Amino acid sequence: MSALLKEIRHNPLLWLLAFVPVVFAASKFKPEAHTLLFVLSVLAIVPLAALLSHATESVAAKTGDAVGGLLNATLGNLTELVIAVTALRAGQYMLVKASIAGAIVTNSLFMLGASFLLGGFKYHVQEYNRVSARLQAGLLFLATIALLIPSAISKADPVAGAAITQKLSVGLAVLLTVAYGLGMLFSLKTHRELFASAQHGDAGEAPWPIGLALATLAGVTLLVALVSEVFVESVQKAAESFGMTPAFVGFIVVALVGGAAEMASAFSGARKNRLDLSVGIALGSAAQIALFVAPVLLLASYFIGPTPMDLQFWPGAVVMIFLATLTASLVTNSGRSTWFVGAAVLMVYLIFAMTLYLLPPRSELTRLMQPIIEK
Amino acid sequence: MSALLKEIRHNPLLWLLAFVPVVFAASKFKPEAHTLLFVLSVLAIVPLAALLSHATESVAAKTGDAVGGLLNATLGNLTELVIAVTALRAGQYMLVKASIAGAIVTNSLFMLGASFLLGGFKYHVQEYNRVSARLQAGLLFLATIALLIPSAISKADPVAGAAITQKLSVGLAVLLTVAYGLGMLFSLKTHRELFASAQHGDAGEAPWPIGLALATLAGVTLLVALVSEVFVESVQKAAESFGMTPAFVGFIVVALVGGAAEMASAFSGARKNRLDLSVGIALGSAAQIALFVAPVLLLASYFIGPTPMDLQFWPGAVVMIFLATLTASLVTNSGRSTWFVGAAVLMVYLIFAMTLYLLPPRSELTRLMQPIIEK
Amino acid sequence: MSALLKEIRHNPLLWLLAFVPVVFAASKFKPEAHTLLFVLSVLAIVPLAALLSHATESVAAKTGDAVGGLLNATLGNLTELVIAVTALRAGQYMLVKASIAGAIVTNSLFMLGASFLLGGFKYHVQEYNRVSARLQAGLLFLATIALLIPSAISKADPVAGAAITQKLSVGLAVLLTVAYGLGMLFSLKTHRELFASAQHGDAGEAPWPIGLALATLAGVTLLVALVSEVFVESVQKAAESFGMTPAFVGFIVVALVGGAAEMASAFSGARKNRLDLSVGIALGSAAQIALFVAPVLLLASYFIGPTPMDLQFWPGAVVMIFLATLTASLVTNSGRSTWFVGAAVLMVYLIFAMTLYLLPPRSELTRLMQPIIEK
Repeated sequence: MSALLKEIRHNPLLWLLAFVPVVFAASKFKPEAHTLLFVLSVLAIVPLAALLSHATESVAAKTGDAVGGLLNATLGNLTELVIAVTALRAGQYMLVKASIAGAIVTNSLFMLGASFLLGGFKYHVQEYNRVSARLQAGLLFLATIALLIPSAISKADPVAGAAITQKLSVGLAVLLTVAYGLGMLFSLKTHRELFASAQHGDAGEAPWPIGLALATLAGVTLLVALVSEVFVESVQKAAESFGMTPAFVGFIVVALVGGAAEMASAFSGARKNRLDLSVGIALGSAAQIALFVAPVLLLASYFIGPTPMDLQFWPGAVVMIFLATLTASLVTNSGRSTWFVGAAVLMVYLIFAMTLYLLPPRSELTRLMQPIIEK
Repeated sequence: MSALLKEIRHNPLLWLLAFVPVVFAASKFKPEAHTLLFVLSVLAIVPLAALLSHATESVAAKTGDAVGGLLNATLGNLTELVIAVTALRAGQYMLVKASIAGAIVTNSLFMLGASFLLGGFKYHVQEYNRVSARLQAGLLFLATIALLIPSAISKADPVAGAAITQKLSVGLAVLLTVAYGLGMLFSLKTHRELFASAQHGDAGEAPWPIGLALATLAGVTLLVALVSEVFVESVQKAAESFGMTPAFVGFIVVALVGGAAEMASAFSGARKNRLDLSVGIALGSAAQIALFVAPVLLLASYFIGPTPMDLQFWPGAVVMIFLATLTASLVTNSGRSTWFVGAAVLMVYLIFAMTLYLLPPRSELTRLMQPIIEK
Repeated sequence: MSALLKEIRHNPLLWLLAFVPVVFAASKFKPEAHTLLFVLSVLAIVPLAALLSHATESVAAKTGDAVGGLLNATLGNLTELVIAVTALRAGQYMLVKASIAGAIVTNSLFMLGASFLLGGFKYHVQEYNRVSARLQAGLLFLATIALLIPSAISKADPVAGAAITQKLSVGLAVLLTVAYGLGMLFSLKTHRELFASAQHGDAGEAPWPIGLALATLAGVTLLVALVSEVFVESVQKAAESFGMTPAFVGFIVVALVGGAAEMASAFSGARKNRLDLSVGIALGSAAQIALFVAPVLLLASYFIGPTPMDLQFWPGAVVMIFLATLTASLVTNSGRSTWFVGAAVLMVYLIFAMTLYLLPPRSELTRLMQPIIEK
């Protein structure tokens, strides 16, 4: 317990934990104050995500490389997963899909670009392990193809599209999960030496005792789930009062909130000239959302959602995912980076964010994002 | 003749030649047994394709490198060409187009991916000549642009599309043939030293005497043409009884049957750590279909088809060709391969195959694939 | 003045300057002879563009590297800019857009491809600085994403598209200009050593005295503006009498005329085995059109056009820009070139040119290209 308290004192981000009880109190006494609840739940999720990330790493450090890597890779996007499951249970499928698409785009453009930019401010030219970056970019590219096929078919051939989307989505979910498993087998087992420098982990921070780590993992996951419920309930109404479209909230705000803890690690790695870590977190996290979180959510929708979900995305989101993945592939191909590469990648992100911000509330995407339960 | 018999005894695949007379007998006495005829004709085409491939190589080995390379490159897809010409004469243009698209996708994804996977099971990391792979991938990319322009224009601008598709297709066919000729001039004449390791050929097998090779070439081409007729006539009905959509048959089954012999060579090369051979066959064959077979079929349709054919493909096929080519380009860019690269490429192929398998029979593609002669 | 005369005597292209007074005389006495005026104005613009280019370089040489590079980069596409501003003032927005799209495609395919081809005829394999080529290709790719987003959104979501196109276009124009500025900061200031060999300039030609250069710059810009007016007025009618569609004229003819001077420099560099220069001019010029000329024209339309312009392009043009940029990225990735690479890139250009030539006059693009003022 003292390790936990020491961690909290050490890391200023964790002072935000004070907002966790506040958000529960507010949601009990002021259930109509959507904007307040939205802000409070964002402030509460960020430190919880950071704790979750540290607990996962500590468990991973204790269990040996293979199992640890597996755990780390699988639980790395736990925050996003919990938020999405909460939205799934509420039947808000368009919010689920927008947050999947948004997490892929945000991780492969914003997290990568900002890492390059921040690192580039301190170092003239930075180098990183391009073999590892290529694997992650390749996996991401594969996932992108899987995610865009249902939309491409339904665009190219409306009759065909409607009839097969559901079956196709389940098939794709299974294929993606298999690809994810093979990717881990490859990077953790058969060819782990190729990924050498990307496997260092956060050498600077001492791992927690295993008991504390496991307890934190369980307790914090529960807290994230409870806060996510407040977040998902308040996000739509709050967005309106901020003048943000639901598309912008799902794609940008949820992705940034859910990925806050990983971004902190990636940016700190970049500033320590450990770009392997940053690129690994950014691309790995994006690949994981596409190959693991998306299929799990689809399959989960058969059990906990009002109706089965599919993997057909809003066509604009498909274009953005494709361009984000292509950008990340082209940019990481050389294994070198400068501040300008980061700035250019961030520009692509800004172009997407601006487009989503300007989308009118009556557009196809935002109409579809109205919660089903309200109907 | 004894060389031919020895070859048959040596190569277990050639025992399937026994099915050649069987298919003719069956088509005479049981013309309504479509499923049986389909299975028999597939079993008969595979060994004929293998013979054709060996005969071509033997002729090529005798005539010196330049002419031999030319012959090899030009006759390498003879099986696909003969099947497609048979479909063309029957007016089944959608089957022709599906088999062109399918051959490009199958060669650049299935043949390449399975070669990487099979090679990767035996060797930890395999290297190959990336200059040569880049040329093939570049040619393929060029052909893809040519094939997707008519569809893109007709999608973007329906009025324009309908009016110019036919003229544009002829122009593209001429350009592609010129590009193909220039590519051979480059790789066989002006810059042949860049392609050194890819030109080894099947050093393991002794070439046949020239007379036998030429006679085999002529005789087997005739047999393939006759069996193809049975195959093309039975494929649609048989597909239905197997529960396969016509789209799946044209794209996947025809491409796998037509390319069986080349696949055997590519896979055997990969397992002998001669990945240059495998990559050369896979990408070279895909480029050849796009740059040579497709234009030849288009121009041939003016003489032997009921009406002129065009190069406008089903939009879903265009997306698949584009993604297959982009995948092959990105993957072969590094000149190195492991089992996982192969698995990932095969996954993309599986995604496409699954999509085509699930397409409902009433979709735009499958409706268009109903033989014109039945109308 | 004698330097100017010496230059004219030295450079056979400049004999065409004789057509400048001829075009003014013809436009006064034969205002209805559209075809004649079109031909004369093309013949007059080409030498003026060459003079403009030389004057810019001379000013750049005098003002030191940073300011000079800035000037050179900013005024390099002055001809295109002046032609487009003339079309803008006449309200011919589709001609403006077609010439923007055409200049990007022509520079990144025709100029690049022809440089590779011409250089390849003299040298077996040519090498160039791939870091610099990658930066330019990356900037171009970024700009392409910005230019295709409005069209992609409006295609994917017609309701959304119409409502936000104008606001989005202004936002994109600002982002692109910022990206352009950052790119110059990067290549001229913080990381100029990476671009070493690309900064040589035309070492062969002595710069003019600064006074002559500035006077030429001012005077020739005025002449280009006046001749452009004749060109823009006559181009549509003349195109009809040549049997060319307005799409072909805007995309191909205007781009070739506007870029004639830069092409002369790029081709001469390639034949002197100074491919860095050629690649820099081709990709740099394309990036500049997309990142600087297009935004400037958009913003200028608020002041000098009949109504504000937007950045939504004809979908076929978006496909072409995307494919041209992708081709340039893939091709320049290796830093090596042969004649065949050039031939393949030119083939892609020919495919586009042929498609535009065949577009029927009643297509969506050509209909939209009818001058607004005629309505």
